[in-house]
Amino acid sequence: MNAIPAAVLDELRRIVGPRGWASDPADVEPYLVEWRGLYRGAAPLVLKPASTAEVAAIVAHCRRTKTPLVPQGGNTSLVGGSIPFEGGGEVVLSLSRLNRVRAVDALNDTITVEAGCVLADVQAAAAAAGRLFPLRIASESSCQIGGNLSTNAGGNAVLRYGSMRDLTLGLEVVLADGRVWDGLRGLRKDNTGYDVKHWFIGAEGTLGVITAAVLKLFPQPQAIETAFAAVPGPAQAVELLALAKAMGGGQVSAFEIVPRIGLELVLRYIPGTADPLAAAHGWYVLLECTGGKGGELRADLETMLGAAAERGLVLDATIAASAAQAAGLWKIRENISAAQKFEGGSIKCDIAVPVSRVAEFIARAGAAVTALVPGTRVVAFGHIGDGNIHFNPLQPAGMDKAAFLARWDDVTRAVHDLTHALGGSISAEHGVGRLKREEIRRYKAPVEIELMAALKRALDPDGILNPGKLL
Amino acid sequence: MNAIPAAVLDELRRIVGPRGWASDPADVEPYLVEWRGLYRGAAPLVLKPASTAEVAAIVAHCRRTKTPLVPQGGNTSLVGGSIPFEGGGEVVLSLSRLNRVRAVDALNDTITVEAGCVLADVQAAAAAAGRLFPLRIASESSCQIGGNLSTNAGGNAVLRYGSMRDLTLGLEVVLADGRVWDGLRGLRKDNTGYDVKHWFIGAEGTLGVITAAVLKLFPQPQAIETAFAAVPGPAQAVELLALAKAMGGGQVSAFEIVPRIGLELVLRYIPGTADPLAAAHGWYVLLECTGGKGGELRADLETMLGAAAERGLVLDATIAASAAQAAGLWKIRENISAAQKFEGGSIKCDIAVPVSRVAEFIARAGAAVTALVPGTRVVAFGHIGDGNIHFNPLQPAGMDKAAFLARWDDVTRAVHDLTHALGGSISAEHGVGRLKREEIRRYKAPVEIELMAALKRALDPDGILNPGKLL
Repeated sequence: MNAIPAAVLDELRRIVGPRGWASDPADVEPYLVEWRGLYRGAAPLVLKPASTAEVAAIVAHCRRTKTPLVPQGGNTSLVGGSIPFEGGGEVVLSLSRLNRVRAVDALNDTITVEAGCVLADVQAAAAAAGRLFPLRIASESSCQIGGNLSTNAGGNAVLRYGSMRDLTLGLEVVLADGRVWDGLRGLRKDNTGYDVKHWFIGAEGTLGVITAAVLKLFPQPQAIETAFAAVPGPAQAVELLALAKAMGGGQVSAFEIVPRIGLELVLRYIPGTADPLAAAHGWYVLLECTGGKGGELRADLETMLGAAAERGLVLDATIAASAAQAAGLWKIRENISAAQKFEGGSIKCDIAVPVSRVAEFIARAGAAVTALVPGTRVVAFGHIGDGNIHFNPLQPAGMDKAAFLARWDDVTRAVHDLTHALGGSISAEHGVGRLKREEIRRYKAPVEIELMAALKRALDPDGILNPGKLL
Repeated sequence: MNAIPAAVLDELRRIVGPRGWASDPADVEPYLVEWRGLYRGAAPLVLKPASTAEVAAIVAHCRRTKTPLVPQGGNTSLVGGSIPFEGGGEVVLSLSRLNRVRAVDALNDTITVEAGCVLADVQAAAAAAGRLFPLRIASESSCQIGGNLSTNAGGNAVLRYGSMRDLTLGLEVVLADGRVWDGLRGLRKDNTGYDVKHWFIGAEGTLGVITAAVLKLFPQPQAIETAFAAVPGPAQAVELLALAKAMGGGQVSAFEIVPRIGLELVLRYIPGTADPLAAAHGWYVLLECTGGKGGELRADLETMLGAAAERGLVLDATIAASAAQAAGLWKIRENISAAQKFEGGSIKCDIAVPVSRVAEFIARAGAAVTALVPGTRVVAFGHIGDGNIHFNPLQPAGMDKAAFLARWDDVTRAVHDLTHALGGSISAEHGVGRLKREEIRRYKAPVEIELMAALKRALDPDGILNPGKLL
């Protein structure tokens, strides 16, 4: 990558004005480092425009001068999608100052927000209007809507409400030539041509810069019930899911699997946690239902768990008696990754398979990994209701961490090959970024890569938008 | 359009074999006429391939010889999308023999079907597996899945389950160069690049030929309750919708508005119908809830309607006591269009606006139309829960039908201009086809038309796929 001429940088600074940019190394540092430390890039300039018009002027100038730019939201990527390369030949375009809630339309159940809004603030704005914005992910207090859109964020509530793509009715996008496409429609039905918004959702900033969106809102659930159930194994967890989905009253809103080792690591390293059940079991399901009425929903959940126990699908279970107890159950689920860190090195795979293949995946992937590195502790947990497993093999006790992590490519290769053989996805919710750019080519048919490249060429012929990411 | 050389037609016949084509005028007639009679095309050959491989060979040969083709499913288009032009320079590609259900995966809640499957057969296959495929549209006994996908079909259950786009997890598509893209994934989460399937859904066969799909299934609802409620007007109907959505237990699965004149026309012309309520009212809502438990769901619905009555949102209401009574309520809703035909000429508009603007739309559109043609009877009904109104002005009593229909363009122009001003869509669920190809250019920003054209050029550079439709 070539250095960016000073005159180009000067003009970009002029576009955003004195408050809209940073070049000082200390100031730009947070924009250059991926939070997990996997990537550290370089950039001579971080731009922080305050309006869509400024974004458009920036992109137009970059197009004229063939200057590559990296759009960035809350910088919570797990795959290096929002970090510039090391060469310093790109500018970073932070959307964080575009953070207005433009409108809430409660009767239409929509909210119109700018790309730089933090997800938690959008959740709060929805709640203030008596509505729910249902996207729930671990990074919600710092990730931004533009990033959620560009990565089609998933998380805990996909089972009931869908991914970010499903939650989006309209977009405003600055195209690669600096023109603005105003697709900020708040419509449930609109069949007047190709649905352009879907091109940009999940495109990781490579086709355009999303500046605002119209998102769907939902009624706030009247009742929430949360259960923690021991199950014989993943196969029974999937059968339990089918029972829970068919339950009268309310709807399953989350369905997560937790292995015994995951619970044990949390109990060992995370203060303020306790085993919810009296005896130890091999596998657990964290199940949340919402939408019915308080007492009835709890009764329905008890009935369902009882029926599941009779069929041998549930060995023991507890239902949270309070919001605090429910939070305690979620704390276990949410801290598995963090607890793994204290125990040594882990290799991270974020895969999805058809729900009907999850049990087979967990068994075969575990066998493949322990064959490669005997003694590896298999930590497989997460959104089993979506077929999405965070499969994170943990180093054998006592093994050198670096020696284990040196097997990263072997291990992920085995896991990804199996995932592909089972009709699955090697990146369920984390996206492609830099980390999996080459890896997706191993599994996608060439015709699909060519289709993707055709759209990229059509929309960004000079390749200035987040080059080297995804494609 | 030029005539297609005999050698090209011969090769196309050879590809599909003797059972795979028709040329006799009587045999091809059903493929050339739109069922409403608005369009009648010509074609020297109708191809009826029996496999994806045959479709691929057809399209490859058409690409080599620059022969335009018109993909066709059940031929139930309302906008001329599936009919060739009059010149006879196109072949029709019927997908009707690709009608296998390839797989049902109950644990994954998916069904894999070919494009030529009739929607009702897919509903039945899902039911046989103890699941629900929720798409419900008037043409379900003859429309085909390929057409449902290519038009992003909507209908009565969008409020709860979404449009065809939302119900689709994977596609198999024959591209314009004859290659097959196998995107038949059954995954709830997959973020490994651009989501190519969304390009083809709703593209009306102009970007590729959909040959199969993986569709979502749902639990069959344990309970269904259907109510017919008189409301003061559309504004109160929208407020009632918000109450119904927030109701504990079950979920609103349909929410339709019916005006008094719609009910009166049905009572006058459709045998076996009766006014569900004792007194006449100006507006009605047909409301369906599903998913809770029998007795409880009914009690919840009664409580909600009671609360709505106290707030003046409901004037009178009845809840169906049996499936037969519920069918009777739906019969009223489904026969408004048919009843209008007996009363004279109608002008048809299929629009959507934000739900919060529906009442304003109905009032202003009615005023605009009666200003243009005094005495016009405004029949506005349909999916108010989605903001989707079938706005079908009916000729003044005693006016000459042809004279009224001669005002079609004036009337639709006024309605569409207003729709656009309210942030709406001039084709909520019927698509573009031939009928609205020019009309969408009036309302879409040039940049959006250019984006659409860019994808068309990238995917079908010779323009052989359904030319002159949509774009």
